[in-house]
Amino acid sequence: MGKVVIGVMGGGEGSPRVLEAAETLGRLIAENGWVLLNGGRPAGVMEASARGASRAGGLVVGILPGGPEEGASRWVDVPVYTCMGAARNAVNVLSSDVVVAMAGGAGTLSEIALAVKLRRPLVLLENDPGPAVAAQAAPGLLAAASSPEEAVEKIREFLG
Amino acid sequence: MGKVVIGVMGGGEGSPRVLEAAETLGRLIAENGWVLLNGGRPAGVMEASARGASRAGGLVVGILPGGPEEGASRWVDVPVYTCMGAARNAVNVLSSDVVVAMAGGAGTLSEIALAVKLRRPLVLLENDPGPAVAAQAAPGLLAAASSPEEAVEKIREFLG
Amino acid sequence: MGKVVIGVMGGGEGSPRVLEAAETLGRLIAENGWVLLNGGRPAGVMEASARGASRAGGLVVGILPGGPEEGASRWVDVPVYTCMGAARNAVNVLSSDVVVAMAGGAGTLSEIALAVKLRRPLVLLENDPGPAVAAQAAPGLLAAASSPEEAVEKIREFLG
Amino acid sequence: MGKVVIGVMGGGEGSPRVLEAAETLGRLIAENGWVLLNGGRPAGVMEASARGASRAGGLVVGILPGGPEEGASRWVDVPVYTCMGAARNAVNVLSSDVVVAMAGGAGTLSEIALAVKLRRPLVLLENDPGPAVAAQAAPGLLAAASSPEEAVEKIREFLG
Repeated sequence: MGKVVIGVMGGGEGSPRVLEAAETLGRLIAENGWVLLNGGRPAGVMEASARGASRAGGLVVGILPGGPEEGASRWVDVPVYTCMGAARNAVNVLSSDVVVAMAGGAGTLSEIALAVKLRRPLVLLENDPGPAVAAQAAPGLLAAASSPEEAVEKIREFLG
Repeated sequence: MGKVVIGVMGGGEGSPRVLEAAETLGRLIAENGWVLLNGGRPAGVMEASARGASRAGGLVVGILPGGPEEGASRWVDVPVYTCMGAARNAVNVLSSDVVVAMAGGAGTLSEIALAVKLRRPLVLLENDPGPAVAAQAAPGLLAAASSPEEAVEKIREFLG
Repeated sequence: MGKVVIGVMGGGEGSPRVLEAAETLGRLIAENGWVLLNGGRPAGVMEASARGASRAGGLVVGILPGGPEEGASRWVDVPVYTCMGAARNAVNVLSSDVVVAMAGGAGTLSEIALAVKLRRPLVLLENDPGPAVAAQAAPGLLAAASSPEEAVEKIREFLG
Repeated sequence: MGKVVIGVMGGGEGSPRVLEAAETLGRLIAENGWVLLNGGRPAGVMEASARGASRAGGLVVGILPGGPEEGASRWVDVPVYTCMGAARNAVNVLSSDVVVAMAGGAGTLSEIALAVKLRRPLVLLENDPGPAVAAQAAPGLLAAASSPEEAVEKIREFLG
């Protein structure tokens, strides 16, 4: 049967504190035996979470917006080249058993909104998208966390 | 050269007041000689805006999430069947010279976020997605309106 | 109800003879009151068929592989920017009531194969994709033509 | 750095002989330490190649046409749900370092055509798509094999 896939969404930029949390989250995902899925680019939360998971021996799948000529983070084991641009955000969300949204920009916000629309379990890690998201989320599919460790607890609860 | 394309985003459901505004907005878009682009389904803001534009003699292009077997609103002149599900929201945004976001759910919120990310001019018509969107929007690409008539004024300003 | 949409598939390059046939086909599509849908780029069969339809007063919808920054043929009325690269070929096929495949390269061959797979009526205009396609096509959904005029006859038969 | 990803394309149905070859090919891919990427559905060449790779301890990534509600083959480790229908064929091709096309229908033919168009190394395993494909393929990017073992030799040559 399939492995458990945890999607980590976040921007191509991030403060040192956010990037450190992303790397820790990647490590914890690997240590739990889960696959890390992210946007695959060599930047920001994507790069940091992939590095954390890869160094801990985990498997990293990157769903990229472009094609092979644009390349992926060196910490990605399996790059999936969609050539779909921002539309690949829907693939990220659909392919994750649980989605964790870290601090990010409008792209991350679109992934949060898609997770709510597509009814995927969603953990907000130090990310407050505002009342519009909370109002739309289905009961029991939205959780907030203030640390990578707490995010992992919420993931475990969603996985049941 | 291409026609001016105005995208109207909004949910598959809507209060009578929202649907009336959508129909008026569709009519005004047609009366200005613009093409209406929306999500094409026979429901909610999509159906109402398409009806308004079509009855006023305008052209309506619907970008549908499914395939031909699912069909489109009868007011859509050219249904574009993407079979992409929610990922088609990126196509809607990219193909609109100006995007108008009406009241809607998480799908509309994802379109708002994508419009900000992809830097398309965006008019919020009685839709407040919260501070996360305002913080991300590029200067000069975001406007708010409280009536279809005011939305058309904002569209005109964006079209310059 | 929706307009009749005829998709014309063909490469970004073409011999003078092929391009002349594409322009004639575009004109005939417009004269029959049908919408022309093609790949939208300012090149080859796409440009020629769009010019033929547009000059005859027809409506041209272009389904583009890239985004707005790459632009479309000047003869396209409504450019739909998919940012999906070659994956947009499935959208072209799904959105056409009848698909006409003219001479082209591997991209056109993929559209022919998708038309067969997705069971859209398909007219091959001086294009012989070989026995693999003929063997897969459903009965009654494949026709061959040797001139734009004959292609239009086949389209009419498919439209019933 | 990323793992080597070998894409195996083939239909949802297949003769016992084709399915046996698919299972052997999956096993050989795993034994070489490569990742198997295929269409992920629990049918035909997809199921057989995934089973062969999984039983040999390999990693299997399935790029699915639908969403999570449709499920994947039980031999797929990481299902990537695209909800893109046949358009996901372009993702399969783009994400494979080498593409192997086995016997299949029109969907497989579209993947062959896309591999040629997108200039991915392509091994035809007992699959003759006809002269149109051979005429379009770039020199050095197309090979034919008559057994899984020979296909693996061709893959090794492409990987250099």
